[in-house]
Amino acid sequence: MTDTDALLAANAAYYRAFAAADIAGMGRVWAEDDVTCVHPGWPVLIGHKPVLESYREILSNPNQPRIEHRNEVAIVAADDGRVHCVEFVGGVALAATNWFRRVGGEWRMIHHQASPIAALVEQGQQAAPKRLN
Amino acid sequence: MTDTDALLAANAAYYRAFAAADIAGMGRVWAEDDVTCVHPGWPVLIGHKPVLESYREILSNPNQPRIEHRNEVAIVAADDGRVHCVEFVGGVALAATNWFRRVGGEWRMIHHQASPIAALVEQGQQAAPKRLN
Repeated sequence: MTDTDALLAANAAYYRAFAAADIAGMGRVWAEDDVTCVHPGWPVLIGHKPVLESYREILSNPNQPRIEHRNEVAIVAADDGRVHCVEFVGGVALAATNWFRRVGGEWRMIHHQASPIAALVEQGQQAAPKRLN
Repeated sequence: MTDTDALLAANAAYYRAFAAADIAGMGRVWAEDDVTCVHPGWPVLIGHKPVLESYREILSNPNQPRIEHRNEVAIVAADDGRVHCVEFVGGVALAATNWFRRVGGEWRMIHHQASPIAALVEQGQQAAPKRLN
C-alpha cells in the first residue's frame, strides 16, 4: 500500500466511523496532539477531548442526516497528508479538509473542517480519488 | 523571534496583503507547492496559480468588504504550523484556518479555509494570541 493509499484509507475510516456513529472508531481516527476541528457553522474546537465530545454529540443525534463523501484529492508530503473531498449531508454539499499526520507509522487526523459550498447540487457519480503526490 | 512569533507574523502578513489588496504580497505569503484554498461558499482550489487567481479576483472587487482577524491560536510542530482565528468580513464571522509550512526557513501558507460561524456576533475586544506549542 502506498502512502497515499494509506492516507485515503484513513480518510475512508473517518467517514465509516461517522456513518456508523462509532465514537470509539472516531477516537482511533484522531491523533492525540495538535487536534482541531471546525464543524459547519461552529467555531474552532481545540484539543482531542473537545473534538471527540463534539462527535459524540453529533453522532448521538437521531436526526443526524446520512453523510457521503466524494471526489477525494490526496496530498502527501513526508509525514504530512491531507484529503480534500466533497461531503453531502442532508442535501447540502460541503468542502471538507481532512488533515492527517503520520504518527507511529499510521495516518491520524489532526484537523477537520467542512464548509458549505454555495449552489453545488448533488451529482450522481463518484469520481476516482486523485493522487497529487 | 520564536517559531510561533514568526508563524503569527506570517499570518499577519496574509491579512495585511488582503487588506491592502496587494496581490504581489499575497503571492509571497503562499508557498509554491501543495497549495489549497477554500473561500467561503467556494469549492476547494488546488495549486498556486488557481489560488492566486482567486485572490486577484477577490482583491480587485471594489465592493470587497474590509477584513479583520482576531483571537489567533497558533500550533507549531517542527516545520508544520497553523493559525486558527476568527475573521470578520462585512459583518460575518468566519472560522479561519491558515496552514503554513516552513520552506527555506520561512513560514509559507499552504492552505486557507474560512467557514461562516452561525450566530457569532462581532465583539469589541481583541484577545492576545494564544500559543499552544
